[in-house]
Amino acid sequence: MDRRPIGVFDSGLGGLTALRELARMMPEEDLVYFGDTGRVPYGGRSTDTIIRYAQQDVAFLNTFQPKAIVIACGTVSSTALETLRREWAIPIFGVVEPAARAAAQCTQNKKVGLIGTQASIRSGAYERALSALDPKVEVLTQACPLFVPLVENGRYKVGDIVVETVAAEYLQPMKEQGIDTLMLGCTHYPLLREVIARYMGEDVSLVDVGGQCARWVTDQLTARGLRTDKQGRGARRYFVSDSPEGFCRLASVFLGEDVADRVEQIDITVY
Amino acid sequence: MDRRPIGVFDSGLGGLTALRELARMMPEEDLVYFGDTGRVPYGGRSTDTIIRYAQQDVAFLNTFQPKAIVIACGTVSSTALETLRREWAIPIFGVVEPAARAAAQCTQNKKVGLIGTQASIRSGAYERALSALDPKVEVLTQACPLFVPLVENGRYKVGDIVVETVAAEYLQPMKEQGIDTLMLGCTHYPLLREVIARYMGEDVSLVDVGGQCARWVTDQLTARGLRTDKQGRGARRYFVSDSPEGFCRLASVFLGEDVADRVEQIDITVY
Repeated sequence: MDRRPIGVFDSGLGGLTALRELARMMPEEDLVYFGDTGRVPYGGRSTDTIIRYAQQDVAFLNTFQPKAIVIACGTVSSTALETLRREWAIPIFGVVEPAARAAAQCTQNKKVGLIGTQASIRSGAYERALSALDPKVEVLTQACPLFVPLVENGRYKVGDIVVETVAAEYLQPMKEQGIDTLMLGCTHYPLLREVIARYMGEDVSLVDVGGQCARWVTDQLTARGLRTDKQGRGARRYFVSDSPEGFCRLASVFLGEDVADRVEQIDITVY
Repeated sequence: MDRRPIGVFDSGLGGLTALRELARMMPEEDLVYFGDTGRVPYGGRSTDTIIRYAQQDVAFLNTFQPKAIVIACGTVSSTALETLRREWAIPIFGVVEPAARAAAQCTQNKKVGLIGTQASIRSGAYERALSALDPKVEVLTQACPLFVPLVENGRYKVGDIVVETVAAEYLQPMKEQGIDTLMLGCTHYPLLREVIARYMGEDVSLVDVGGQCARWVTDQLTARGLRTDKQGRGARRYFVSDSPEGFCRLASVFLGEDVADRVEQIDITVY
């Protein structure tokens, strides 16, 4: 039993898709979210820079004395998780391992696809996690650097020729090679689910890394006796490193609720 | 006569299109470029954050004791120029004023279009500059948030349905309203020149803000007696806030030459 909050962070808005799942599965838990909107996106930056930014993000969330920290970001999870775990004693959960477990269970023909940011693909983290679970699984990867800007500009709907053209270019090689499972390795991608599902066809299962991570964190906290005993809906607090304005406008798309009065700006560079 | 270098900065790579023009017009001058690749892009961030980042960018360049600083970025020029000029004694040149002069001279029907980042459009700086030069000029504006990610992902060529679709959506209202001059208000946009020119038609003149700025800076330094008396090609130094790797790969596209051995990484947050 542990009443401390759960800290959740992302480079920006994408992690809200994972936060939404966490809030659905554990409605009574207090959640503190940080989105690094002053430095988003992380996915095209170098490994060193992503690690440095992630260290500051965790240091900030740690000021709330959380019982656990969730990296709701494919880029940081695949690039910085090991470093962060070495530096902090509290449990830190990323999106890679739970997604790899789900994909390994799901695939029948042992051909799994992975899409993500340039940094996520470069890291090789998803392949390592899958290979540890099942060495026979073959992983086909594709970096999709335009997906995040397209989503953040509202271009994620079926029928939009721009996002459909870009998606087809990114996904064609995997489709041709006959994958039966595709990991959506970035927490922005659930918004593209319908576009991707239509292109890949109904024989390909999509694994949402944020959703899998939320399920995994829920199981882990329950198993370790770290769930709160408080009743009712937990508190939700949101922090960002740029003005809250832009965040609030887009947050409703990702979260399905208005957060305008609960978002504060902080200076992340002092952590 | 002044042998000190000229400092040039941008949020990332786009400013290299202006640097290229400066180097062409004043080959003998020493140039120091800073690209804030660890925090790029600026165009979607809040006014306060853009000003804070720009203050650090100028503080870094000032360590080279430059004779002038050129803001080779539409977003910073339109959002932070006045603040920066108040804080520093050396001449600071932005892209807004020279572009407004060129547009005011160019337009016949007094209908001028402006495209740029969200921050540039929000600032109203181009309209104010044009209105001061010619109150009769009407300015039609359009924020184009996807142009920078499209250019940085190599999608700027004629025949690419993605960039052509996005460009048509952004530009259609201005075309319908019959502008005869269009300011390309971001230093990334010269790479889109052909796509934009084809859509707008040959009756619309395009004003490249980086090129106009380079001409203006050359004239100003000459008029003020601040040109160097050194002979031969000046030194070129490049600094970035993320790993030089990604910068070097794309710099050749913007600059038309290889810069790999002249790029250093710095920590911009200490300035």
